[in-house]
Amino acid sequence: MNPGGLPLRRGLISIKDLTKEQIEAVLSESAKMLNACQCGADVNYLDNKIMATLFFEPSTRTRLSFESAMQRLGGGVIGFADPSSSSSMKGESLADTVRIVSSYSDIIVLRHPMEGAASEASASSLVPVINAGDGTGEHPTQALLDLFTIKMEKGRLGKLKVAVVGDLKNGRTVHSLAYALALFGNQILFIAPKKLQVPDEVLSGLSRRYSGMVEKSESLESALDADVIYMTRMQKERFASPDEYGLFANYYSINRKFLSRANDEVILMHPLPRVGEISPEVDGMKNSVYFKQAAYGVPVRMAILNMIIGQQSGIV
Amino acid sequence: MNPGGLPLRRGLISIKDLTKEQIEAVLSESAKMLNACQCGADVNYLDNKIMATLFFEPSTRTRLSFESAMQRLGGGVIGFADPSSSSSMKGESLADTVRIVSSYSDIIVLRHPMEGAASEASASSLVPVINAGDGTGEHPTQALLDLFTIKMEKGRLGKLKVAVVGDLKNGRTVHSLAYALALFGNQILFIAPKKLQVPDEVLSGLSRRYSGMVEKSESLESALDADVIYMTRMQKERFASPDEYGLFANYYSINRKFLSRANDEVILMHPLPRVGEISPEVDGMKNSVYFKQAAYGVPVRMAILNMIIGQQSGIV
Amino acid sequence: MNPGGLPLRRGLISIKDLTKEQIEAVLSESAKMLNACQCGADVNYLDNKIMATLFFEPSTRTRLSFESAMQRLGGGVIGFADPSSSSSMKGESLADTVRIVSSYSDIIVLRHPMEGAASEASASSLVPVINAGDGTGEHPTQALLDLFTIKMEKGRLGKLKVAVVGDLKNGRTVHSLAYALALFGNQILFIAPKKLQVPDEVLSGLSRRYSGMVEKSESLESALDADVIYMTRMQKERFASPDEYGLFANYYSINRKFLSRANDEVILMHPLPRVGEISPEVDGMKNSVYFKQAAYGVPVRMAILNMIIGQQSGIV
Repeated sequence: MNPGGLPLRRGLISIKDLTKEQIEAVLSESAKMLNACQCGADVNYLDNKIMATLFFEPSTRTRLSFESAMQRLGGGVIGFADPSSSSSMKGESLADTVRIVSSYSDIIVLRHPMEGAASEASASSLVPVINAGDGTGEHPTQALLDLFTIKMEKGRLGKLKVAVVGDLKNGRTVHSLAYALALFGNQILFIAPKKLQVPDEVLSGLSRRYSGMVEKSESLESALDADVIYMTRMQKERFASPDEYGLFANYYSINRKFLSRANDEVILMHPLPRVGEISPEVDGMKNSVYFKQAAYGVPVRMAILNMIIGQQSGIV
Repeated sequence: MNPGGLPLRRGLISIKDLTKEQIEAVLSESAKMLNACQCGADVNYLDNKIMATLFFEPSTRTRLSFESAMQRLGGGVIGFADPSSSSSMKGESLADTVRIVSSYSDIIVLRHPMEGAASEASASSLVPVINAGDGTGEHPTQALLDLFTIKMEKGRLGKLKVAVVGDLKNGRTVHSLAYALALFGNQILFIAPKKLQVPDEVLSGLSRRYSGMVEKSESLESALDADVIYMTRMQKERFASPDEYGLFANYYSINRKFLSRANDEVILMHPLPRVGEISPEVDGMKNSVYFKQAAYGVPVRMAILNMIIGQQSGIV
Repeated sequence: MNPGGLPLRRGLISIKDLTKEQIEAVLSESAKMLNACQCGADVNYLDNKIMATLFFEPSTRTRLSFESAMQRLGGGVIGFADPSSSSSMKGESLADTVRIVSSYSDIIVLRHPMEGAASEASASSLVPVINAGDGTGEHPTQALLDLFTIKMEKGRLGKLKVAVVGDLKNGRTVHSLAYALALFGNQILFIAPKKLQVPDEVLSGLSRRYSGMVEKSESLESALDADVIYMTRMQKERFASPDEYGLFANYYSINRKFLSRANDEVILMHPLPRVGEISPEVDGMKNSVYFKQAAYGVPVRMAILNMIIGQQSGIV
């Protein structure tokens, strides 16, 4: 679909816009950023640059890690954090808002409840736009930090059996992750209740291109021999009613007992926040890497910001 | 009224506090800032300085451009963005709030729903105060960026026919702009529905001082030969009822057809956000400068901040 | 209770975690910071460091002075300002939120409605935590800036008669201040309506350790010969009903007439915001130091931040 790959310089709307080589370049730059931070090296690559965070939907985690990344790089931040502040733009089109804010900043990070918002924003922006989640659409920097976590914690990104668990019907960010995992030659096991299983078109799209590497299951038991277990939250807001949510809220849950039966080297991931999917009793186990995963959000976003608007990275 | 002009060092409450020479100095500094930004020159003039943005009323556009300006200059920003955060000061007088925050910062940018708030704040502040809009009162940095836009886009500021269109009764920021336009020897045409026409005292004040340069009209047709058309939004919140607002909401609207009949060199301005006053179909025309106008907000506010609290600008 | 004193490097949860020597070190560093700011000296000690302000309860004053302090030191700030933004973390435990944000930042400043929240946060944080108020619990940086104010304005910290006035039952931050005042050998006079007097266990705790130095009274008259009068606000939200609040709202109030009868050298303090406890008519009197007290919040918090995460302060 995207054989040559868009230059990252134009922003980041979908993980599918990136080639395998571009993803590898992001992961490699992320490792350098991580290392620089740990050494206390000077990384003021974005001095005097301004990032605008336009969050039409609250998302503290993503916003704070982006703002930390930008400031670690010496840049400044403007923006708003929740829908109520954006009400001040009442009556104004997203295109106008983005066009104007793009004249105040060097890069825009957009979170919006409407699928396709990032792509629309990008069309009217004077500066690159990073999609930080558009409704049930894409969230490419999350996918990249997930891949980075796997690479760092498993030592490689490929030939792994990855179990993805939870609401795989509504959680489309999971579809992007699945796409990238398949791209790197991993085996993917989709574990979900029947009603929340990954849509057929996603599954058939993946199996056509990566034959034999995709399976589905209803049972967490099938994850026992996985190299990576990626848990996700049942998102209350995506269900038709509280009752329906109640049916699935704690459908899958990982505790110490489960892990004792699992592959000893398995890593346990979660985009967080968790509700009941992972018991705090396993937080201290070597398999539990979800907090590290969250922490990797900063170096990965530093790498992305610098590759898009930095002077010193002609890499991609 | 203000023959000598207050030193800008004491803050900026009303455009009427500035002499013609001071306004010219601001515009000249703004051009330097614009140029410095475009060249990527180092403009860290306000390193270690802190600007407090106290927004008792949301105003994303003004706030973000001020915060961008301050950070482009190397300074830091503290503050709050909307009325709900300021509720934490419940029971506290504006004077106390401003007095305290002025001891945390080097300059205060205040937005407040009450007319006269900026002046009151200035009296209790230890640092200069910039009025970023006080209710139906003044908004001097908007007037200055409007003047800067005219100068940049028309090549001069004077001997122009400027049509100001919309709700000229309630929109008092327009009165400040009119005052400044008259000061620079422009001809002003006020276009509004009868019920929303510019108040007689404003009109007679201007005609007394600048005879023959002020006219009024109900019809947008009279703007066809103008050099500048300045559209404004009918502000819902200023009308007595939704019905009354409905009567005037789309009273005037500019589209491609209208522009094809207008002065070929006319520039079309708008403080934004627009609702229906300007059709997006004209966005790409050379006459449409409203997005440039918004963008000029940053260099103009950089100039103002630096002239008030910078070390290197003994100009005014 | 804490003979050796915890190293400040681990954060600041309670004033009681600090020894007298450590408190003196903080005050001495604060004086250096104040001096550096007044001289315009370069104090970029925290370049590239990030402070996270997690305010689960609005508190503009404390938040803004922390953010000013951090930026004066060259550092960056991330965070949220009010409960509504934190609702985005719905369903997530405080421990998880803090753990994650601690991987984005170098220090966390936490405000939370629940007593004990700061201590709980500290247990799950990877970086030091500063308690910026936990419900009716502690607010140690307020106590430190209060002590700093007394030292600066009275020239010493000890052998003073300090009258603490207001709601001494619910305002536990006052208990921390009382503890520190006693530690430095001051005489404390608690002035409150009977129903709002300091709890017996606090009083007996203090009198056991510092015999004869603690008294209580119902009348403001007993403060006439004090060296320091520390007024506090009756906090509406701590009363059972508006009626009960009404009974005490303006129980004590200081005006020009009262001050004319008081010790000529008395200093009048208040953590602010004030409602009716101090009449604005005394603002200009030399005794009124409450605005200075608020201003001292910045150098004191600069000192604390630098002592906890700076490179250059191995002092404590």
